Amino acid sequence: MRNIGLVLQYDGTRYSGFQLQRNGVSVQAVLEEAIRAVTGNPEAKISAAAGRTDAGVHARGQVVNFHTDSAVPAERFHLALNIKLPPDVRAIRAWDAPPEFHARFSAIAKTYTYTIDNGPVPSALRRPHAYHWAPALNIDAMQEAACELVGEHDFAAFRASGGAAKTSVRHMLACSVSAVLEPSGLPLLSGAPLAGDHRFVALRLTANGFLYNMVRIIAGTLLEVGAGKRTVADVAMALVKPVRANAGVTLPPGGLCLEQVDYRQRTTGDGA
Amino acid sequence: MRNIGLVLQYDGTRYSGFQLQRNGVSVQAVLEEAIRAVTGNPEAKISAAAGRTDAGVHARGQVVNFHTDSAVPAERFHLALNIKLPPDVRAIRAWDAPPEFHARFSAIAKTYTYTIDNGPVPSALRRPHAYHWAPALNIDAMQEAACELVGEHDFAAFRASGGAAKTSVRHMLACSVSAVLEPSGLPLLSGAPLAGDHRFVALRLTANGFLYNMVRIIAGTLLEVGAGKRTVADVAMALVKPVRANAGVTLPPGGLCLEQVDYRQRTTGDGA
Repeated sequence: MRNIGLVLQYDGTRYSGFQLQRNGVSVQAVLEEAIRAVTGNPEAKISAAAGRTDAGVHARGQVVNFHTDSAVPAERFHLALNIKLPPDVRAIRAWDAPPEFHARFSAIAKTYTYTIDNGPVPSALRRPHAYHWAPALNIDAMQEAACELVGEHDFAAFRASGGAAKTSVRHMLACSVSAVLEPSGLPLLSGAPLAGDHRFVALRLTANGFLYNMVRIIAGTLLEVGAGKRTVADVAMALVKPVRANAGVTLPPGGLCLEQVDYRQRTTGDGA
Repeated sequence: MRNIGLVLQYDGTRYSGFQLQRNGVSVQAVLEEAIRAVTGNPEAKISAAAGRTDAGVHARGQVVNFHTDSAVPAERFHLALNIKLPPDVRAIRAWDAPPEFHARFSAIAKTYTYTIDNGPVPSALRRPHAYHWAPALNIDAMQEAACELVGEHDFAAFRASGGAAKTSVRHMLACSVSAVLEPSGLPLLSGAPLAGDHRFVALRLTANGFLYNMVRIIAGTLLEVGAGKRTVADVAMALVKPVRANAGVTLPPGGLCLEQVDYRQRTTGDGA
């Protein structure tokens, strides 16, 4: 039986999350429906997904795997699925993975972004993909706090209750904060614009794994640092005394996106 | 009576266009409803809008003006309106304009962008804001063709029937084509990614005015140049022999965005 690896992109706005739910439509449900239509197997299910994104969370590079007897060539599988998928879910690449490939357990790193809309008024265009915060943010302080998170730490302060992970130690491989300016759309009046650019602040985190709500809590904590409500030292302390009260608020799901999942396949014999 | 100038941003996806329509909800309808609620005048209407964007077209910097007796200060007017507006329509700035200011007739230039999604599979995340075209595009040829359009020309070849303009001569102040790469979301497998970046091609046009569907027809024409179906000389010819058959197809509305409208106020005495 073939083991197909599949990269998936979705706008999570109208979904109840990735995983099958009793209430609401999940990304998994529409994906499995498409797999059933393409493979002709009414029982087809996915075997695993790299990230169980919550309701309203987006993905640019979610990875799943599923087993099938279908003869559809890997390089066409994603195109066949796209014919059956709704336009806010796209399969962007499929490949024949080795039998032991597991989208979740084989992953060695995941990258998430969290986008803060730091303009004076929330952007109507980026609305479902950014969290709006109008007051000024100190980007330098946020970057400094982000640096504190890099390395192997107990991230229990940045974990929501409800996660099933046995250990809360994770290795943060990279954590960056960048400010991106977009045109404001404001008119020029007699040579002078009404005001300046619209600022977005993008957090980008890569780790060997994430705890439940970890990115959204880190984003809330760094936002509080940027707003002057919390210091860089407070963030360092939250790693040393890892209790939830030492970290900041959990930001809403819309700003979060699962960007990429990386694998080192165990069958390639590259010494991993 | 005050003449309020207002800058508006909207995601046009669920609207039947800017202007009031018998069928469907227009941006103007929800805006006028908000103005009525804020000013307490159940008869309030806008006086003019800079661009009459079609169904599905977006705006980052639409400008309107309206007359009111309301005492709400200009610097708070947009915030008051936002409380009443749906989240996909945002007022981003208001100002007290001179009595003769007219959002449409006072405009000296408008800037539109058209975004082509040139990735192998349509982006689920940028879907309502880009037109998908998978085959390779020759950006250099598109840029060369765009340069042909700059200057004062008869753009009748790039006009849909239905426009009311008396003359089809317009002054194109700038016309650029740029390729923007975004991360693809594809995983690293044993050190090598499955494939490269996802490419978007952005057209940006500034003119003293646009004919009906002009940007969407120019976008279709430049796309055909990029795809090798039409030459740069063909585009030059469409300006010399300005008949519709000499230009390309009209691309769909979702890729189009009214970015900015510029004004030279006649009351500032700057010699305009």
